[in-house]
Order: sequence, then structure tokens, then C-alpha cells
Amino acid sequence: MEKERNKERARMAVVDAAIKTVASLGSNITIGLGTGSTSALFINMLSRTIGTESVRAVIPTSYQSEEEAAKAGFKIAYLREVKRPDIYVDSFDQCDLQGNVIKGGGGAVTREKLLMVLSRKVLLIGDEQKLVNKLNMAVPIEVIPFAIHGVITMISEMGWKPIIRQAAGKAGPVITDNGNLILDVDIGVIENPSEAELKLRVIPGVVEVGICTRRGYQILIGMNDGTVKSI
Amino acid sequence: MEKERNKERARMAVVDAAIKTVASLGSNITIGLGTGSTSALFINMLSRTIGTESVRAVIPTSYQSEEEAAKAGFKIAYLREVKRPDIYVDSFDQCDLQGNVIKGGGGAVTREKLLMVLSRKVLLIGDEQKLVNKLNMAVPIEVIPFAIHGVITMISEMGWKPIIRQAAGKAGPVITDNGNLILDVDIGVIENPSEAELKLRVIPGVVEVGICTRRGYQILIGMNDGTVKSI
Repeated sequence: MEKERNKERARMAVVDAAIKTVASLGSNITIGLGTGSTSALFINMLSRTIGTESVRAVIPTSYQSEEEAAKAGFKIAYLREVKRPDIYVDSFDQCDLQGNVIKGGGGAVTREKLLMVLSRKVLLIGDEQKLVNKLNMAVPIEVIPFAIHGVITMISEMGWKPIIRQAAGKAGPVITDNGNLILDVDIGVIENPSEAELKLRVIPGVVEVGICTRRGYQILIGMNDGTVKSI
Repeated sequence: MEKERNKERARMAVVDAAIKTVASLGSNITIGLGTGSTSALFINMLSRTIGTESVRAVIPTSYQSEEEAAKAGFKIAYLREVKRPDIYVDSFDQCDLQGNVIKGGGGAVTREKLLMVLSRKVLLIGDEQKLVNKLNMAVPIEVIPFAIHGVITMISEMGWKPIIRQAAGKAGPVITDNGNLILDVDIGVIENPSEAELKLRVIPGVVEVGICTRRGYQILIGMNDGTVKSI
């Protein structure tokens, strides 16, 4: 109960900081929007504080984030119209002290990483409970259906443990918004995130990997006491 | 006409050599099969020469190669049953003197590269007209539909020319067997195939790249005079 309250306080603090960052960019801006509950909270709070007028368009990374942005009153745009969004705002699942993160809990890692690379500024937000010394949770990777057993063979032979993510609301595995499958790959404590990211990324059939190594992103962590820490 | 005859002679010679290689592996073997007219010719000739009895199963890389293998009388298997095929046989679109190749004309490069990595032995066959000093044709890359304009933005900013491959038999672009799009990317003469492959491969949204750098593959080239050259 105490833990839940802390988490909520931390989340509100960091979302508030994200809104201030976005507001500081001025008007007529374009925002890439991540997927998941924190991104949804951010876009909802954004419309209620600075309003929708100063935002030219939101470029969503999933059906879910498109719905949230549209419901909050923002105009939706795609990568044909907006080539490089002014800012990308998203959450993450785990963050280490160097600012490397694991993403993909929401199953949208491919579109999220694309927007992260395209956007002029990237702001990742999360709460203190996601902060760790070294990354150690299972890494989500998106895999084309044909390749799933081949990729499992290769990853297993590397000594890692891949599990096909199962869906709720349908029988069998999760199908991503891109029509692919997700493997959650337990690779233990991640000593070298860049190396692990590349090793998984170059396996044929792997569309994207949920490790994002520090590439000039701004990362804000909401602390339990309601302060915000920059990593 | 002379050119066509030469090409046909070269193709028959190299397919014949591929069949001898496969035959030398003994019985009860599993074969990964590439996509395209040369792969189709190979599997058809294989059934007519050594027969289908010594082959336990063929693992196809496309609807097309599955059809060809099944029509030729072979049992079809997938990567769940056959984890590592004994040999992979495929063609290519261009090959340089170091044995680096460009593939993907048939639109199946992702599955082809997966099979190339999984198979215990890889045999690539082609005719003399595909042999060049340095690779210089447009590189096919498979891209998830959502990412297409983002990938075009990034590749264009790299100074390269991407074109969305258009379909015959349906309006608009080619959709691959994996449900994705294909960009043919003109990057000029390719001085460093490994570097170009990786540079394209790590762009988020890019599923696979049609440059295959030399990784211990056997490459056989059918020459116009009917001989076969090993690269």
C-alpha cells in the first residue's frame, strides 16, 4: 500500500517534469508518443495542463497510444507528414545508473526505437522502482513468425532462455501491432548492454531488441519522495 | 540470343554441380531451399536425378519454394522439426570476387538469411553474368510497413536512394511473405559490404538487409563455357 502510494507520487512528479520540458519547447511542436500506462498518463495530463493548442501533432507508436492521444484531443500524424518529431516522450521498464534502459513491456519496442532515432530530442521517464544498478530483467525482442523456432534455437545455443510471450484476450502468443511475435529473453545480469543489443539484433528474423543503450537521451526518474532525478 | 544460351548453359552446369554436392552428403539429409528460379530449377533437377528418397525433408524460404519442393515430391518441414538443416542451397543476384553477395531479388531475404545462419553448410550458386568486381546493384531491405517513411528519411539523409518496390498482380507495393515492404536502396559501388550491411541492419524498422558478407559459404559460379568455378 505504501509502495503503491510511493510509486504513484513518483509517477506524478516525473510526468509533471515531462510536461514542463515539453512546454519549454514552445508552440506548434510535434511529439512522438511511447506506449504504455505512463505514456498514456503523460498525454492525458498534457492536454489538461498546457492544452492541445500548442501541439501540432502527436505521432503514436501503437494502436493504444494513438487512442490515448486522440481521446486527449490531439491531432494524430504519421511519419510521412512528420519526418522528425521535435520530442519523443516514453517510459521504460528498467534503467541502470548509466542510463541504459530495457523497453518492450508494452510490446511496441520496434516503433518506439524508430521514433527514438528519428526524434530531435528524446525524453524517457520512469519511477524509482525501475532504477537498478545493472539491467537484469528479460529482454523483449520482436521476431517474425516464420523465424521463431530458428531464433529460439540460436538464442538457446548462446546459453540464454527465450520464452514466447503469451497473450491475454486471445489464445496463444501475443501478436504485435506489426504482426510479429515477442520473445522475452533471460540473459541474466547485463554487463555490456551495447554488446547484448547488437548480438541479438543481428540474428536474422529479429526485428528489434528491447535494450536501448545511452544515445544522448534525457532520462528523468520520479523518486518516492516526490522529487525528480536526472540520469 | 547468344547471351541467353550462355546463361542457360552456365545455369545448368552450376545446378548440376550443386546436385553432386548434395548427393555427396549421403542419405536422410535435410535441405534448406532458397527462393527464385535457380532454386526452383535446382530442386526440380534434384528430384529427377538423385530422387526424393535420400532427402528427409526440405525447409523452404517462401510460398514459392515450398510449392516447388512439394511439386517435386519432397516432404516439407519447418524450423520446429528441423533445427539445423544439413545444407542450404540458394542463388544470389550479384557476387563479388571476395564472395560477398547481394540477395533479395525474390523478396525472401529475411527467411533466406535465417536459413543461411542455421544450416550446417551453405551452397550459393549463380551464373557468370552475376559475377562482378565490386557489388554495385541496389540493396533490397525488408522494412515493417509502419516504419517505411521513417526508414526512407534516415536512408535519404545518409545520401542513399531508397525506392519502394512495386508489385505486379496487385496495386501498390510488394508485400513480402512476412507481411512487410521492400526498399531497393541504391548505395552505389559497395566498397565495404560488412559496413554497409550493418549500417542498414541497425536502423529500427529494418527487418533484414540483402547484403550477405562471406561467412564460410561455398559459392559456385556457372561459366558461359559450361565449366564451374569456385569462389
